Amino acid sequence: MEERTLSTNRIYEGRILSLDLMNVEMENGVKADREIVRHCGAVAVLARLPDGRFAMVRQFRKPLDQHMLEVVAGILEPGENPDYAARRELKEETGYDACSLERVGGIYPSPGYTDEHIEVFFAELDGDADPSDLDHDEHVELVLLSRSEIERKIQEEEIKDGKTLAAWLLCRKLL
Amino acid sequence: MEERTLSTNRIYEGRILSLDLMNVEMENGVKADREIVRHCGAVAVLARLPDGRFAMVRQFRKPLDQHMLEVVAGILEPGENPDYAARRELKEETGYDACSLERVGGIYPSPGYTDEHIEVFFAELDGDADPSDLDHDEHVELVLLSRSEIERKIQEEEIKDGKTLAAWLLCRKLL
Repeated sequence: MEERTLSTNRIYEGRILSLDLMNVEMENGVKADREIVRHCGAVAVLARLPDGRFAMVRQFRKPLDQHMLEVVAGILEPGENPDYAARRELKEETGYDACSLERVGGIYPSPGYTDEHIEVFFAELDGDADPSDLDHDEHVELVLLSRSEIERKIQEEEIKDGKTLAAWLLCRKLL
Repeated sequence: MEERTLSTNRIYEGRILSLDLMNVEMENGVKADREIVRHCGAVAVLARLPDGRFAMVRQFRKPLDQHMLEVVAGILEPGENPDYAARRELKEETGYDACSLERVGGIYPSPGYTDEHIEVFFAELDGDADPSDLDHDEHVELVLLSRSEIERKIQEEEIKDGKTLAAWLLCRKLL
């Protein structure tokens, strides 16, 4: 059953997201309101070093007022190609360049109320790069983890970020 | 590095979500704005029938203007216990009762801009129940899939909902 748009009221237009209130009509004639967050889109990258460890980041997330352990990720700049954004975020957040980058899928984190879409990649990093090049405007801590450490942190709910869990699943075939 | 709240401006207060604009100060003294979606919370349930198939749902998602194949899920009613919500959503969306329900984790779908939290469960369904009890206010189509069909649909990106991918990962140990 589809929903036809009757009206759209933009409540807020911001930097990374906007909020629309929509009135819709279902195929059975019933009308309903929808609160919809429009998002600029993002990339997420599970990145592996030559020694087999994965490069993740720990950062403070204001919506939760807590630190989260996540794959490298970031929002798309206007008009930016997702591949380019993935390489840019890897460099900014880990200091490393990607030797290879492969798209493994695309996810919608919360399709009930937002159109946010995240392109997900697997990257092999150049371990000879110098992570001291780290962009100090990025307030993230680089965390290097083995495969078994990641599995344990998922089990113990230290890793609880949705895109990180989805990326781990989508990259299985490459690990 | 934490972020101290300097001010909060509630732009919108709605039914399932609200929007706050926050001004924060980082530990290095730099100030920044944060656009934060406050969400009422949700549950997601990977549900298995006695014949081994999984009960998923296909529904129209207005933010994407497309149908999505997802695990059973729904938002928490005010004050509702997540276990209760999981059993309620199973009944409403599939028509089946749960014989058993086990929490497998909790996820934050998009911690960069929202506090939305989803409690994730694995349920064994009572296959003798009558799915004709289906709540006809729920505009969802019940879809029964084998394990290999789900794996294929993940691979082919027909399943691309973040919580469904995360639930599939978190339930691995029980399948």
